[in-house]
Amino acid sequence: MKGLFITFEGPEGAGKTTILQKLGKELQQNGLDIVMTREPGGIRIAEQIREVILNKNNTEMDSRTEALLYAAARRQHLVERVLPALKKGSIVLCDRFIDSSLAYQGFARGIGIDEVFSINQFAIEDVMPDATIYFDVPVEIGLKRIQDNKGREVNRLDLEELDFHKRVHEGFTLLKERFPKRFHEIDASKEINEVYQMVKEKVMQIYTMEMK
Amino acid sequence: MKGLFITFEGPEGAGKTTILQKLGKELQQNGLDIVMTREPGGIRIAEQIREVILNKNNTEMDSRTEALLYAAARRQHLVERVLPALKKGSIVLCDRFIDSSLAYQGFARGIGIDEVFSINQFAIEDVMPDATIYFDVPVEIGLKRIQDNKGREVNRLDLEELDFHKRVHEGFTLLKERFPKRFHEIDASKEINEVYQMVKEKVMQIYTMEMK
Repeated sequence: MKGLFITFEGPEGAGKTTILQKLGKELQQNGLDIVMTREPGGIRIAEQIREVILNKNNTEMDSRTEALLYAAARRQHLVERVLPALKKGSIVLCDRFIDSSLAYQGFARGIGIDEVFSINQFAIEDVMPDATIYFDVPVEIGLKRIQDNKGREVNRLDLEELDFHKRVHEGFTLLKERFPKRFHEIDASKEINEVYQMVKEKVMQIYTMEMK
Repeated sequence: MKGLFITFEGPEGAGKTTILQKLGKELQQNGLDIVMTREPGGIRIAEQIREVILNKNNTEMDSRTEALLYAAARRQHLVERVLPALKKGSIVLCDRFIDSSLAYQGFARGIGIDEVFSINQFAIEDVMPDATIYFDVPVEIGLKRIQDNKGREVNRLDLEELDFHKRVHEGFTLLKERFPKRFHEIDASKEINEVYQMVKEKVMQIYTMEMK
């Protein structure tokens, strides 16, 4: 693998998606070979799987079914989008990846981080991110941002209770302790332009260390 | 668990489905509490997953994606259909279960039986069949039966090469050796009524040993 695989992780409303898009475009304008993506990333099969996961009528979905479906969509997106980009040497910025499954299904749903890691390991075959930008934001602030953003489509996971989102945050905190070298924490409670600058600096630091 | 969980396994065209239906009805008429099922078994979420798996246009599907999707559908069907039936003491006759994934994705697709077992273990949490009726039939005979059965809908897996179906058969042979106590082999190359009688005898034997 010649490329660089950077994932953006964190709870809802942390600003990951907005910042990833803006940063990706700026770095492209600076001449870097950037691929911006998110699961399911327009990959047909992964989109079909995501439709099943996020369908608001599928209230009877078991947590383990959900975890397996995320792993399946991840696999297909990895094979069709991420790996080809890494092979040709691109910097891949990916909005959510394995850590979201570990925090949401593994910890918040109570399946267990190790168990969810094992099915994801089947899906990714050791292709872990080189670095993960972790957007840390208090749950209440994150949720308020989502509620204020009227343009955003509400999905099944957004409808979970506050308590669930608190467990997600706790899950991410555990992952940060578990992967201290890979996780780069950003205080995402700050104003968005400030967060943007911090993320940009961090990504450039990682790029300089890993690619040069 | 008070019930009895019996799976019917084997390559295509072995007669599993026909015999399961006929036997289930006969045993019900004899007063036994029988639940006949197959994945996805009319479970909404599992049906949605199966649509993704068997969609003839999804030719770019990666083997590991496929294996994870089967495990996801299996989980949902297990939770909604199989476990409740076993809890109330029914005899569950299930057309295909974990062994099909081990033979098709684990062995024939080359992922590895142990690797596919591990994601299925995540899905089933130790709910293995009490017994498995293994319909052994030479690949050529099985495939000829399918081709002669014009009413049967052809799906993505039916379109695989002969060589693939041979590997599936080899996979089942390995599983038979690996699970000698659970696997009960039936010579399914015989005429269908004869196969039916053998299966019926075997199932009654298992029932007598396990339930009485």
